[in-house]
Amino acid sequence: MIQFVSVDSMISLIKKRGVGDLTIQIARAIEDDFKRWDDFDKQPRIATHSALGVIELMPTSDAETYGFKYVNGHPSNFSLGKQTVTGFGVLADVETGYPFFMAEMTILTAIRTAAMSALAAKYLARDSSKVMAMIGTGCQAEFQAHAFKALMGITDLRIYDLDDAAMDKFERNMEGQGFTITRCADTPGAVKRADIITTCTADKKNAKILTENMVGQGIHINAIGGDCPGKTELEKSILLKSDIFVEYAEQTWIEGEIQQLNKDHSITEIWRVFDGQSDGRQSEGQITVFDSVGFAIEDFSALRAIYAMTKDTDFTENLDLLALPDDPKDLFGLTR
Amino acid sequence: MIQFVSVDSMISLIKKRGVGDLTIQIARAIEDDFKRWDDFDKQPRIATHSALGVIELMPTSDAETYGFKYVNGHPSNFSLGKQTVTGFGVLADVETGYPFFMAEMTILTAIRTAAMSALAAKYLARDSSKVMAMIGTGCQAEFQAHAFKALMGITDLRIYDLDDAAMDKFERNMEGQGFTITRCADTPGAVKRADIITTCTADKKNAKILTENMVGQGIHINAIGGDCPGKTELEKSILLKSDIFVEYAEQTWIEGEIQQLNKDHSITEIWRVFDGQSDGRQSEGQITVFDSVGFAIEDFSALRAIYAMTKDTDFTENLDLLALPDDPKDLFGLTR
Repeated sequence: MIQFVSVDSMISLIKKRGVGDLTIQIARAIEDDFKRWDDFDKQPRIATHSALGVIELMPTSDAETYGFKYVNGHPSNFSLGKQTVTGFGVLADVETGYPFFMAEMTILTAIRTAAMSALAAKYLARDSSKVMAMIGTGCQAEFQAHAFKALMGITDLRIYDLDDAAMDKFERNMEGQGFTITRCADTPGAVKRADIITTCTADKKNAKILTENMVGQGIHINAIGGDCPGKTELEKSILLKSDIFVEYAEQTWIEGEIQQLNKDHSITEIWRVFDGQSDGRQSEGQITVFDSVGFAIEDFSALRAIYAMTKDTDFTENLDLLALPDDPKDLFGLTR
Repeated sequence: MIQFVSVDSMISLIKKRGVGDLTIQIARAIEDDFKRWDDFDKQPRIATHSALGVIELMPTSDAETYGFKYVNGHPSNFSLGKQTVTGFGVLADVETGYPFFMAEMTILTAIRTAAMSALAAKYLARDSSKVMAMIGTGCQAEFQAHAFKALMGITDLRIYDLDDAAMDKFERNMEGQGFTITRCADTPGAVKRADIITTCTADKKNAKILTENMVGQGIHINAIGGDCPGKTELEKSILLKSDIFVEYAEQTWIEGEIQQLNKDHSITEIWRVFDGQSDGRQSEGQITVFDSVGFAIEDFSALRAIYAMTKDTDFTENLDLLALPDDPKDLFGLTR
């Protein structure tokens, strides 16, 4: 039997712990794991692209534990009333190959992505940062806001989305949770006076959500939505005047904003910053970009954090997924 | 909700249908899918090797359906009283990326592997084949025997395993099921008078389970156990005097018996034989080898066959794996 955290259980866990606390726990797990970067088997995720979207498998492993996530990205789902991104994840024991944990990761992916964003911003944004602009208020937005509040104390949000209903939803969901939200008429309005800009839009194309004229000195850009070949959000000239930080370079060159750059452009893997091997922000005026595409180790960290919290509690149920005969050579005996 | 076939349900399904009938259904699904080879996205499986074993993800996709299997291979598990191979599989809708089906695949992998073996043998073994030698009577053996009976009418088995208890188990499991079983003292004894030789042993090393002197004219070798880098069963000289058939060449060069050969050696992908593009057996005296390592399309075929059989029946249960809010942009709303 493997332990399974269903959607219902994940929701109960979030309600019990609070999204902020859960995000802090997951950010801590990610930071710990990124600091031991060399312990992991790493590879770009395995993507199967189709006309409307992508299905990905994201495996990674340390010496004890193997993890992978199944995740899709289908912007066209919205028009069908479906989620753009859904997912689930599995942990297994490296020594035996036996899976021991499975969890929903539609909600958990949103939390871990936000945890990663805020964690990176802790190292890359100005310490004095107070105001965050959020371009795109879809599924990921509330989780981002809560993560930046929990990890950086940011409560002043300037939001913009093409879809008014998405902004309505965001304001409704964030009411009474300690945020000051300014609803803006367009992206230039939203980014005005912002210390941090989070871009999180869904279109699978090379978009220019942010253009160079919108980006002032000292800004940190948390670029979430450019995460697929042919799917970017930033004007190239922004990248050329910024210092760029990524999760796992080999994968980000395929999927991130840096698709737009020559391969010899200097970028920094964020684990080096966490670990003290590389500098994060060095000056007040510097423009920093966290070109986030999501990497397997983040899911691994999120899964092991949730596993530790839910092990042997009512948040898990047993899933009858592994045939385990008493005599290991007698699999057939089970069928008689 | 996605439909889930647990281990218990898979066992019930096998008991209801009979392993022979189920194998025929799956062999038919594999043959159909292999005949439309070009419809599939194909890649070698993604293997994570450790000291004791391997964990693999095996994805494939046609235009409508995406499938993948998680599977491990840990020969050392036996000494822990655990299964060498366990697995589970998932089908998803390409248009939306939503998974819709999950099933145990520890037992199902054994059936689909046997179905593939017998299907290949139908095209490669002599039509007059009556006797099969089976070297290795572990977890896979009974399924192989039932598949060769169901698809080729073979009931005369000559078995050998280093482990007497494994042969005891095999004889016990096969009693009263229409087979004539001859227990042999060694491999040369078992292969004597055999028309087909099935090798299915578990050691992760370059072994010589069969040597050239044991292989007479006209034999078909169904080589199952060489399925990992550094894990082979046949003496190289056997390969040099045989015609070799594989599932997916790119993967088999990494994992199969043909690891031992130069890359310019001529081999044939078995789908070409099913499809009539290439010859299978051409003469009575020819030695044929099916160098089977297991390929993602076989799992895809097995999963879609089981899905068709179990859809909306009591063999499935609903798994709460996907968070699906009414408003697709309001994932966060689920957590309030």
